[in-house]
Amino acid sequence: MALIVQKYGGTSVASVERIKQVAERVAKFKMLGHQVVVVLSAMSGETNRLINLAKEIQTEPDPRELDVLVSTGEQVTIALLAMALKDLGLRARSYTGSQVRIITDSAFTKARILDIDNQRLHDNLDAGCVVVVAGFQGVDEEGNITTLGRGGSDTTGVALAAALHADECQIYTDVDGVYTTDPRIVPNARRLDTITFEEMLEMASLGSKVLQIRSVEFAGKYKVKLRVLSSFEEDSGGTLITFEDNRTMEQPIISGIAFNRDEAKITVLGVPDTPGVAYQILGPVADANIDVDMIIQNTGADHTTDFTFTVNRNEYARAMDLLETLKPKLGAREIIGDKTIAKLSIVGVGMRSHVGIASTMFKTLAKENINIRMISTSEIKISVVIDEKYLELAVRVLHDAFELDKQPVI
Amino acid sequence: MALIVQKYGGTSVASVERIKQVAERVAKFKMLGHQVVVVLSAMSGETNRLINLAKEIQTEPDPRELDVLVSTGEQVTIALLAMALKDLGLRARSYTGSQVRIITDSAFTKARILDIDNQRLHDNLDAGCVVVVAGFQGVDEEGNITTLGRGGSDTTGVALAAALHADECQIYTDVDGVYTTDPRIVPNARRLDTITFEEMLEMASLGSKVLQIRSVEFAGKYKVKLRVLSSFEEDSGGTLITFEDNRTMEQPIISGIAFNRDEAKITVLGVPDTPGVAYQILGPVADANIDVDMIIQNTGADHTTDFTFTVNRNEYARAMDLLETLKPKLGAREIIGDKTIAKLSIVGVGMRSHVGIASTMFKTLAKENINIRMISTSEIKISVVIDEKYLELAVRVLHDAFELDKQPVI
Repeated sequence: MALIVQKYGGTSVASVERIKQVAERVAKFKMLGHQVVVVLSAMSGETNRLINLAKEIQTEPDPRELDVLVSTGEQVTIALLAMALKDLGLRARSYTGSQVRIITDSAFTKARILDIDNQRLHDNLDAGCVVVVAGFQGVDEEGNITTLGRGGSDTTGVALAAALHADECQIYTDVDGVYTTDPRIVPNARRLDTITFEEMLEMASLGSKVLQIRSVEFAGKYKVKLRVLSSFEEDSGGTLITFEDNRTMEQPIISGIAFNRDEAKITVLGVPDTPGVAYQILGPVADANIDVDMIIQNTGADHTTDFTFTVNRNEYARAMDLLETLKPKLGAREIIGDKTIAKLSIVGVGMRSHVGIASTMFKTLAKENINIRMISTSEIKISVVIDEKYLELAVRVLHDAFELDKQPVI
Repeated sequence: MALIVQKYGGTSVASVERIKQVAERVAKFKMLGHQVVVVLSAMSGETNRLINLAKEIQTEPDPRELDVLVSTGEQVTIALLAMALKDLGLRARSYTGSQVRIITDSAFTKARILDIDNQRLHDNLDAGCVVVVAGFQGVDEEGNITTLGRGGSDTTGVALAAALHADECQIYTDVDGVYTTDPRIVPNARRLDTITFEEMLEMASLGSKVLQIRSVEFAGKYKVKLRVLSSFEEDSGGTLITFEDNRTMEQPIISGIAFNRDEAKITVLGVPDTPGVAYQILGPVADANIDVDMIIQNTGADHTTDFTFTVNRNEYARAMDLLETLKPKLGAREIIGDKTIAKLSIVGVGMRSHVGIASTMFKTLAKENINIRMISTSEIKISVVIDEKYLELAVRVLHDAFELDKQPVI
C-alpha cells in the first residue's frame, strides 16, 4: 500500500464527463489498496474567466480580492470530484486550501507555502477516505485567502506529497510526459522515460511548460518522487523525474531542446565600464517589477561596455521606456531592442562530462545560416537567442544533430 | 452616523454593471458618514447553475460537498464588489461566511446560525472600511462550509445586523417594497410604507416572496429594523417592517392579500374518530420529510372523521403513495387529493379589533361563484383554498372589496 498524491490540471476536470473519468482513475488506485490524495485545478478557462470579470471592474484588480475570487475555481472542482467519488461508492471529502490549513505568506496572487497541517488529511486517509484538495490556494496567518500564482496547483501537489511523506506525486496533464522537444515542431520527438530534476528545471524555465518550475524546485528540495502522466491515455508510464544520483552512467548527453518565443531583447550600448553599472541598469528594472531572464555583458573598446538582457515581450515597451529615462544618468550611447527573437536551449546533464556539445550546436546552426544573437551557458544547458523566424528550423536541425529521436543506449 | 447593513440579492449583482451600481449606492451611504456592511447573494442564476452541475454528477448531491460548491457563488460577488468599491476610492474588504466566523450547526444545505464573531467586522468598520460579507453561508465548529438554504442571504443580513447592533438592515431586491398583493394580478396594488413583523411573517410564508421567512423571524426576535427597498429605483423609501407596538391605532384592517399556487390538497376520508389519529396520519408524513402546511379536521357522523391537509405540489405524488400504504392501518375509507388548488389569504393585524372581515371575504367570493374548499384562520389572517382557476379573479375582487388600493386614513 502506497500513499499517492495525484494532481489533475484544468483540462482533466474541464467537464462533468472528465471529472467522472478522474473519479474512475482514482477509484482504480483506491481498489489497489493505495491511499490517495487528489489535488485539482479549476476547470480550464475558469480562472481566466474570473480574472476577466475582475478586470472589467478594476483595471488592476486588488490582489487580496482577486485571490478571494479566483480561488472559487478549484473550490467548484473539488466539490464535484468528491461527489463523483461518492457516486462510485467511495468515501471522499473535499478541502479548500484554507480548510486543510495550507499556510502561506501574505503575498496575494503569488504566495509561498510556509506550512501544511497534515493531521486532518492523515486522519481522513486512515479512515479510508479519498482526500480532495483545492490546488493553487492557501490561507495566511490572518485567515486571508491566498493563491500561489499560475500553475500553483502543481506546487500544491508536490508540497502535499512532501508534507504527507507520499510515495509518489503524479501530475496528470494533457501530455503524457516530457518530450525531447515540442512534437508539434519535431514530429519524431520522443517521450523521455526519466529526466533529472536539474534538466527538468532548465526545461521548465525555458518554456517546456509541462510543470510549473516552482513545483520542480519543491520536489527536488523535499526529495519527492514526481511523475508526469497523461490523464487521457492509460498506462503510458509518463516521465519520472529523478535525482541525478539515481541515473546510470550511460545517460543521454542531451535530454531535450527547449524554446521560448515570449522574450524580447534590450541592449544598452556604450555605458562607461565602471563597477556597479549592472546594478544601475537592472536595479530600476527590478524595482519596476520587470522580470529579466538572460543577462550578457561584453566589454568593448575605450572603457565602455554593451549590456544586453531579455525580458518578457509583454513588458518590452515598459522596459524600453524606463531605460530611455535612465539613459542620461547611465551615460549610455544608445538603447536598442528587438521583439522578434526566440530563445532556444539544449539541456542535458551529460554535457558535464562531454566536450564539443557547444561546437556541434553552433556548427549545426551555422550550416543553416542561422545567426546567433546571444549565447549563455550553464553547467547543463546552452542557450542561444536567434531570430524568431528561424526557430522551427533550428529546433529541427538540432534534434537531428543530437539524434534525440533515438532511445539512448543503456 | 449610523451603522447600516445592506443586503443585495442576485438580480442586483447579476452583472459587472449592476455590481458597479451597488458600489455607487454603498459609496453614497459611506459619504453620508455611515458605517456600511454589505451582504451579497450570488449572481442570479449562478446557484442554480452550480446545483445543476452537481446533479449531473450525483442524482442526489452529497450535502456537505454541495455546500462547498454553491458557496462559491457569493464568494465571487463579494470579491467583485470589494474591487468595485476600491475602484471608487473606498476602503473595502470581503469576507466569506467562514472568514467572518458565522458559526452554524452542521445541517448542510439548511444550516442555522449559532453565533457570529463581530470583532473583526467592528475593527474593520472602525478603520473606515466597508465590509462585504458573503450571504447564505457559514462554517460549522469543525470548519466545514455550510449554507443556510435558499434565500439565506436575507438571514445573514439580519443576523449580522443583530450581531453588530446595526441601526437598520436594508434588504435591496428587484421590487421596491411590500405590496398589498402581486401587482401583476392587481395593477393598482399599492406599496405599503410599513407592515408589522407579524403581517410580514404571514405574507412571506404565504408566498409573497419578498423576504425569506426565517430572516423576518430573526429580525423580530432581535428587534432589527428591517426595510425592503428596490436596488433599481432611487429613494422610494421602500417598506419598513415594524413592531406592532410602534403602529398607530389607525392602521389598515387588511394589509395585503397573499397567495400560493404551489400546494396540493389531500383528504383522508372516514377514519375512526379516536385520539391520536392526527399523529397516525401526519407522523409518517413528517418522517418522510414532507412539509405540511394547512391542516383541517372535521368530525363527521358515525364516529369517523375527515382529515385534510396541504403539501407542496412537488411532494404530492409521494404523499399520496405514502397514504395509500397507510390506508389499511388507518382504517380510512378513502384517500382523495387535488393538485389544482390555490391558497389565498388576507392578512392584517387590524383584524383583531374588527369584526366581519371573514364574512366580507366569504360574501365577496360567493358573489363570484367561487367555491371555498378549505378555510383556516389565525389571529391576523384568514386563508382559503379555492380552485386554482379562480385565483386571479379572487385576488382582484378581494383587493377591491377591502379597498387596498387606497392609502389608509391616518
